[in-house]
Amino acid sequence: MSTYEDLLEISEQLRNIQRSLYLLAWDERTYMPEGAIEGRSESKAELSQIYHKKLTSEKTKKIIDELNKESAQAEMDEVQKAAVREMTRDFQRRYKVPDELIKEMSKVSTKAQSAWEKAREKSDFEMFLPHLEKQVELKKEVAEYIGYENEPYDAHVDEYEPGFTAEKIESVFEPMKKNLSSMATEIFSKELEPGEDVFEGKKFNVEKQKKVCREIAGELGYDYEHGRLDEAVHPFTMGMDDDVRITNRYDEENLNSLFSLTHETGHALYEQGLPSDWYGHPLGRRISMGYHESQSRMWENFVGRSKEFIDHIFPKLRDEFPSLQNNTKDGFYKRINRVKPTFIRVEADEVTYNLHIALRFDIELGLFRDEIEAEETKTVWENKMDEYLDIVPEDPADGVLQDIHWSAGQFGYFPTYALGNLYAAQIYDTAEREIDGLESEIAKGNFDELRNWLRENIHEHGRKYKATEMTKRLTGEGLDAKYHIDHLEEKYGPIYSL
Amino acid sequence: MSTYEDLLEISEQLRNIQRSLYLLAWDERTYMPEGAIEGRSESKAELSQIYHKKLTSEKTKKIIDELNKESAQAEMDEVQKAAVREMTRDFQRRYKVPDELIKEMSKVSTKAQSAWEKAREKSDFEMFLPHLEKQVELKKEVAEYIGYENEPYDAHVDEYEPGFTAEKIESVFEPMKKNLSSMATEIFSKELEPGEDVFEGKKFNVEKQKKVCREIAGELGYDYEHGRLDEAVHPFTMGMDDDVRITNRYDEENLNSLFSLTHETGHALYEQGLPSDWYGHPLGRRISMGYHESQSRMWENFVGRSKEFIDHIFPKLRDEFPSLQNNTKDGFYKRINRVKPTFIRVEADEVTYNLHIALRFDIELGLFRDEIEAEETKTVWENKMDEYLDIVPEDPADGVLQDIHWSAGQFGYFPTYALGNLYAAQIYDTAEREIDGLESEIAKGNFDELRNWLRENIHEHGRKYKATEMTKRLTGEGLDAKYHIDHLEEKYGPIYSL
Repeated sequence: MSTYEDLLEISEQLRNIQRSLYLLAWDERTYMPEGAIEGRSESKAELSQIYHKKLTSEKTKKIIDELNKESAQAEMDEVQKAAVREMTRDFQRRYKVPDELIKEMSKVSTKAQSAWEKAREKSDFEMFLPHLEKQVELKKEVAEYIGYENEPYDAHVDEYEPGFTAEKIESVFEPMKKNLSSMATEIFSKELEPGEDVFEGKKFNVEKQKKVCREIAGELGYDYEHGRLDEAVHPFTMGMDDDVRITNRYDEENLNSLFSLTHETGHALYEQGLPSDWYGHPLGRRISMGYHESQSRMWENFVGRSKEFIDHIFPKLRDEFPSLQNNTKDGFYKRINRVKPTFIRVEADEVTYNLHIALRFDIELGLFRDEIEAEETKTVWENKMDEYLDIVPEDPADGVLQDIHWSAGQFGYFPTYALGNLYAAQIYDTAEREIDGLESEIAKGNFDELRNWLRENIHEHGRKYKATEMTKRLTGEGLDAKYHIDHLEEKYGPIYSL
Repeated sequence: MSTYEDLLEISEQLRNIQRSLYLLAWDERTYMPEGAIEGRSESKAELSQIYHKKLTSEKTKKIIDELNKESAQAEMDEVQKAAVREMTRDFQRRYKVPDELIKEMSKVSTKAQSAWEKAREKSDFEMFLPHLEKQVELKKEVAEYIGYENEPYDAHVDEYEPGFTAEKIESVFEPMKKNLSSMATEIFSKELEPGEDVFEGKKFNVEKQKKVCREIAGELGYDYEHGRLDEAVHPFTMGMDDDVRITNRYDEENLNSLFSLTHETGHALYEQGLPSDWYGHPLGRRISMGYHESQSRMWENFVGRSKEFIDHIFPKLRDEFPSLQNNTKDGFYKRINRVKPTFIRVEADEVTYNLHIALRFDIELGLFRDEIEAEETKTVWENKMDEYLDIVPEDPADGVLQDIHWSAGQFGYFPTYALGNLYAAQIYDTAEREIDGLESEIAKGNFDELRNWLRENIHEHGRKYKATEMTKRLTGEGLDAKYHIDHLEEKYGPIYSL
């Protein structure tokens, strides 16, 4: 067996362990009985440990060192080189950090998450502060071990959005912030509530919502032979190669389930579009978190919340839900695209969402550049909310304590949500130019062209190309927030008479 | 850390891996989408391999060798000695067999099971024969590596019913066979169909069956905080320490679901009764397959199919299922205890069940003692069916091809089903003597006394005692089929006016 084949074998073994871990996690969030959490945590810790040991073993190191030699590289084709590059990256990120530090991070995270839950419940920032301080300190230490391009924060950005840096994100976010903030201010100043009373005071049968959601996912191209749709408090998608599962949640008082469904289906179509030849292969996965989010946001916002999709779906909704009898397509479309200031990121609309992210990115960068102390984050948060959205949360549970990410030590993750929206806009712009009559196909309920285009151009390449390279290949240029702004102006101009 | 603590640590690690494997298997049989079988098989194979390597590692060997030294044993208490004994047994059974042979068995089993499925479908014994021959040959080879008390078959009996041997089983089965066969013959000769038309031509709402089953499991003491009840084509129970899951199946045309439910609940109560301090401990599991089956059969037959339980449950059944309006408790009780000759083991009643097992045991022993050739099994099967039950299957799918076990190489497994029935009778006899008014408590729907008695006397001891020792401790004597016969005579005498 050649050294390269050895690498592929290790990659497959790792994927088998990871897939098992994913199933344990899926089960934990769907069907696991409450009293089983202790055993489940132990099983997950065990498999994680096995995964870590295999990835960072001396055997893996030898193979990776060997394959990175000039003589070995000279004999490889493009795919092989990319495979070695990605496995080397996975290996390095783990191998360079001492085992002791990895164990400490795991312990600190467990404590910090538990403290965060309590702090949020009690709206008590001080309770969480020492844990935030510890997490920042640890993550700065880790960054030194991993290494970075310009500054420590880059080491963490690289985990979620390989190839990106703080500077690169800043250069994209800066113009975006100004544009979004002024658009939001203009919209809010109008004090308009476009659309009709579609949900107010009404009930929407949950079983019917489930049925409709099941049908929509199928229509969009989700393959139930290799997946299933279940319920979860926080909807998520779990990609396990030939088994890609969606979850969704249902609220009797509105039809938000339709949009969480199109969102998760977007994630799932990406996973189901990965080439089956590459299951277990180093390249057989998503490019980055931002690219994954671009797929979910595209199917949620560019498809699901579009006029054309509502044209297609509204008659069916009115058939299923009698309380929509007196509503119109147009009234429904405008209602589900209302823009409102909110404290809570996960409730934010398309216009304000990236401002919520920009705020978090500003703070993370400030912490890592030693320009902000952890104890200042609450005040900085409030000031930035005031600056970007003209509202100030009085309760830290609606402000600095609202997200789980920092308690879990996931610095560098937030930006990928915003990048997802930006990629989505830029990619969809290209798709519209390359697919004849895309909008009218969507209005007819035909999603094949878009799905196949995404599959051919993105999904099937796994992570052969880095995000920056893929964006260039796809759209002919680097990432630019202007497509996001253009999309919002085009869409919300008519809704809000801007 | 002491060597004994090292042993406990390995035991916990193994259990964490095993629990993950169990969840993968549970999911495969409940919720996994059809198209996910390939990835699932690979993940299971990977975790099995990791389990095997850890159990048979040189590190484990060193610890086990060390703990089996006289000096080490001298310092241990009873529990520690038992823990070392059981871990040593688990280790030896794996360590002694060469890896190559284990791999070959796995491959042969995969092929044989697939061939068996096709052969059964086509009722073609010749299609399966070469695989049966290969399995017997391999299992004889394995027996030589593992070692045995008197004869090769013992090596396999020991896997499922530690401490038992072919001879010991023979000495219990021989008198049992005669008694059962003459009881069955007498019953059949009466050509009686006791009870009423309870199911014939009726429908029983499946959702209501599910509701009733859920309630019954709860009444028997099944803990839903550490478990759940789902559907599966072949009902099974999965014990994962603090997470013990039952499955059941429902048929609109009868209420068999009630008895598969009490059966699986019996298994689950055993698993939920294991001491939580011993999760992951070498002793923290069931004594043997026969003992596990004794719990399921006790709750299914001694409780579920008893007059007292039917007294308790029938009013509720009549409330839920209008089609029982014209039936009586007594008619229902007799109907669910009808004795009929059948070709199929899994459809057999309490009286004939152990004869189906005796037949399989006879054949397995014949094969391993070189008294029967694989090619003769079909004919021997037919002759024995004629001898024991006075019926002869014309279709091998109803005869020698009906069970999956031989294709999976599970020789030595069948006897444990019969041992389960024998243990159940003998243990229940003791329980009745030790628990005041057990029958009337059951009639009142109070199962606490029985469950607690089983928990204290069996479940809480894990596998500290071997089956033979446990039987002696519990009932004051060795295993004896007479309790099974007595139970059947007492129960079926009145039903069939014997």
